[in-house]
Amino acid sequence: MTYTLILLRHGQSTWNQANLFTGWVDVPLSDIGAQEAHRAGELLASTGILPDVLHTSVLKRAIQTANIALDVADRDWIDVRRSWRLNERHYGALQGKDKAQTLAEYGPEQFKSWRRSFDMPPPPLDDDAKYSQAHDPRYATLGDDLPRTESLKLVIDRMLPYWESDIKPDLASGRRVLVTAHGNSLRALVKHLDGISDGDIADLNIPTGIPLVYELDENFAPVKPGRYLDPDAAAAGAAAVAAQGKK
Amino acid sequence: MTYTLILLRHGQSTWNQANLFTGWVDVPLSDIGAQEAHRAGELLASTGILPDVLHTSVLKRAIQTANIALDVADRDWIDVRRSWRLNERHYGALQGKDKAQTLAEYGPEQFKSWRRSFDMPPPPLDDDAKYSQAHDPRYATLGDDLPRTESLKLVIDRMLPYWESDIKPDLASGRRVLVTAHGNSLRALVKHLDGISDGDIADLNIPTGIPLVYELDENFAPVKPGRYLDPDAAAAGAAAVAAQGKK
Repeated sequence: MTYTLILLRHGQSTWNQANLFTGWVDVPLSDIGAQEAHRAGELLASTGILPDVLHTSVLKRAIQTANIALDVADRDWIDVRRSWRLNERHYGALQGKDKAQTLAEYGPEQFKSWRRSFDMPPPPLDDDAKYSQAHDPRYATLGDDLPRTESLKLVIDRMLPYWESDIKPDLASGRRVLVTAHGNSLRALVKHLDGISDGDIADLNIPTGIPLVYELDENFAPVKPGRYLDPDAAAAGAAAVAAQGKK
Repeated sequence: MTYTLILLRHGQSTWNQANLFTGWVDVPLSDIGAQEAHRAGELLASTGILPDVLHTSVLKRAIQTANIALDVADRDWIDVRRSWRLNERHYGALQGKDKAQTLAEYGPEQFKSWRRSFDMPPPPLDDDAKYSQAHDPRYATLGDDLPRTESLKLVIDRMLPYWESDIKPDLASGRRVLVTAHGNSLRALVKHLDGISDGDIADLNIPTGIPLVYELDENFAPVKPGRYLDPDAAAAGAAAVAAQGKK
């Protein structure tokens, strides 16, 4: 008896397209992103790896990705659970800033550190700032848990409790679980599953819109490496993510 | 303290457009239906009557309607619950049949009886029939609860337990509840809320795509009549539903 876990990073958003740091800012998919989600649904349908329950973040780009993919795969009727704990990393004061401009302004070392250091968060975002989520009703019950900035380490710290409390029980019930989320919340989960070190995780890039399937044993350890349902597209996609900010 | 309940009938489906009896056959929205859902989302946003939790059937046309409306209203992040108990009436052996042809074949009396009698279901649908749901995985756990045909009375019998067990508790927690469902499952709920008699319910038509808002007291009784967020469009829509099958 093994468990099936399907990870899906949302397709391109309008701010990915515009090369802006997004984080918790709630932007929609671009047309390209919607096409990626459509393709993800076709991959689920054609491989027959069909989820029984969906977990998403509370951000529109992940929700739209799931809605489109499940509609295409005719699995839109499955149960849905959402949590802020699956959100993208909060990018602090960088939210809304142009990536290339930030790179030019602060230099490649600081830029790489903000994007890829394990435990160094960007400066915090002020609650009165334009792109703050401090007054967003969906986070009204979070209290002190609401982040103002996050490192990858902090993402892991708030994501793993949800993995334990909500995703694992669904897997343990024998259901195939689809997690539709973000570059960093999924990197956090893959780091945990694959036992990747704090140093090595910087080099892991998850491509958008391509389902990544894990087969897990009864202890929730992968019985073999996770596999992308379209390996060629995944390799090209990961390279594209690695090149982000360099245009 | 009152509770807010928002009812939304799905927009036009491809089979509504083709004038076929649909029931539990899982057809998508037409382009017109998607536009109706879009308009419903605009009405929620412009009136500020924003739901905190969604209940839908497990049929694509209701799910698509909710997804589109909540996306437009920027409430796609709310909690979602789905149940077959909110499904459209099962139309038995009529599923997949042309309405005008059925009217011509069986005459207006039998036709009206199948569509509008309170407790006379159409002939049951065979489990091996093309449009049966007997082998659909989403109903695999239903066992003997799976209908092969239904009258409005039978819809009420399977819908009301869900109202009691799932919708009422969400209302009681103070959350605004959106129920996105179907002509007959919503007629069943409105009959219950407004205390409409078995005889009078035949004349109630709920238009598609226009949110119907109830304010309920602590006993879940309406404190005033339900109101459509676009009354003029609702009146025209109800007349159009009443005329169905007559083309």
